[in-house]
This record gives sequence, C-alpha cells and structure tokens, in this order.
Amino acid sequence: MIVLGIDPGTAICGYGFVENLDGQIAAKNFGVITTAPQALMQDRLLKIYIELDALIKAHRPQVMGVEKLFFGKNSTTAISVAQARGIVLLCAAQNNLDIIEITPNEVKQSITGYGAADKQQVIYMVTKILNLAEPPKPDDAADALAIALAASYEVDSPSYSFR
Amino acid sequence: MIVLGIDPGTAICGYGFVENLDGQIAAKNFGVITTAPQALMQDRLLKIYIELDALIKAHRPQVMGVEKLFFGKNSTTAISVAQARGIVLLCAAQNNLDIIEITPNEVKQSITGYGAADKQQVIYMVTKILNLAEPPKPDDAADALAIALAASYEVDSPSYSFR
Repeated sequence: MIVLGIDPGTAICGYGFVENLDGQIAAKNFGVITTAPQALMQDRLLKIYIELDALIKAHRPQVMGVEKLFFGKNSTTAISVAQARGIVLLCAAQNNLDIIEITPNEVKQSITGYGAADKQQVIYMVTKILNLAEPPKPDDAADALAIALAASYEVDSPSYSFR
Repeated sequence: MIVLGIDPGTAICGYGFVENLDGQIAAKNFGVITTAPQALMQDRLLKIYIELDALIKAHRPQVMGVEKLFFGKNSTTAISVAQARGIVLLCAAQNNLDIIEITPNEVKQSITGYGAADKQQVIYMVTKILNLAEPPKPDDAADALAIALAASYEVDSPSYSFR
C-alpha cells in the first residue's frame, strides 16, 4: 500500500510517497510544490491543487497523512497554511483517500521514539528507515516523508480501519 | 456586471450574487451552503467546492468579494474558516474571477457609512439598497450580500482595474 504524506504550505508544500511491501518501507517519490510569493493567492492555491492532484493520480496512494494545525504567533502564516491545507484535503476527498491527521509530536514520537525530538533527528531517522543515500531535500520534503511514515505505521496498526 | 460575495465557513458558507445594471443594484441570488458537523472535514470541503462551483457556473459573476480573515481567540474555528476560504479562492481561480478582499470594517463602512456599525444596521441597509421585501436569511447570506455590495462599489470606483 502507498501512503502520501503532506507538509502543507502556500510557498512550499512538501510531499512524500512511501510504499509498504511486506513490512519493508521504501520511498516512492518525494519533493515540494512551490509557488511564487508575488503571485495572487488564488493562483498559488490553484497551482498546488493541479500539481498535487497530478501526483496523486500518478502514484495512487490509498492514504494521506497530513499534519494537524496549531496556531502559533504568526497568524498571517497560519491563515495561509490553513488555506493550502483546505486544498490538500479537497484533493484527498476527490481521489477517495483516507486521511490521517497527525500532530508534529506524534510524528516525532513515531519516527524517533521521542516526541520532543529535533528536526535533525527526524531527518536522520527518515533517511535511515527509508534507506536513502542522503537526507531528503528540502526539509519540507523530509517532513512530508516523516508524516507519510508515521501515517503508514498507523495504517498498519491493528486498530486502524479504513473509512 | 455580476458580483459574488462570500462569507466563508465550513458549517455555513454564505453567498450572494448582485448585479449592477446602470447604477441600479439588484440581488440575483443568495443563500448558504451548509455541511454536516459530523461529516469528515474533507467531505465537507468537497461539498462546498462542488456547490460553489455550480453556483458560479450558473450565475457567471466576473468578480468575487471575500472577507479578509483575522484571527481571534477561537483558533480552531479560524483554521476551519481558513480551510474553507482556500476552497473558495480555488473556485474563483478555476472560474477566472477577480477577487476583492475586504475587511469586515470596510464592508460596514461601505454599506452603512460607519465602520463600527452593528450587524443589524448592515442587514437593514442591505435590505434597503437591494430593495428586498424582507431581510435576507440567514445572517450568513445577508453578510455575503453585504460583501458583494461592497465589492461591487469597489469595482465601480475609477481606481479599480481588472487583473
């Protein structure tokens, strides 16, 4: 089964596809969708929609893992991330994907065994688990792979049932 | 020219279409798109997307007015509103609408001449300006008509240029 992880954002939206074949997890594809800061917001969201939909249709995941949002101090960024997240959820609905929402701490706990792990530990473990020659770049793609891995583990747990 | 106003939300998304014919503004259509609180968020966003896209294709507006978001205390609601707003902006982009972002105070100023007007004053003026037999219901639809009117006035100003 193929699981897609998404690290949503308007300027940079990270994605990572992992495939679990009999317990051996491998990265199928990963990268980022980027949009120009000077473009109109609606056009940036449209670009994310078109590219993410094409990626989903190319790789046919059954499940999408996506980070739960929490609002920090920068609420302008938060609005923009939430708008992009709306587009991501729409793509999932239109392509009949199950969605697993995961908090950043749950991702860290799942990948490193430690909920307060730092970014470098997470990237180190993602690289190791997926047997990659080097750490995935940029960080948004590595984050998306971490989310995909955590979602993949959750799907494999006995308590998980598809919607 | 037809202008669409949107009051974005996940549970209730208000919409209002107004048409300006030689300075006489009339309501073409207004109402709300509702989604069930117990439904999955991705399915709620998909319902908004499908219904709003159908409304736009039926009424063919050239411009969409949509409220600018500010974050108050309830950040869970804010995330949900911003996700719905992302869907609204996507629909606008896919249908080639100009987007005018307006703050709540600008809407009040534009409709009542007073930026701190209360909701009832705004609804009263919307009813009067559009020559409606009674106040538009529910309030989300009235708010959407107010946004459409304010956007329509902005489009009519000499300084406005289509993108």
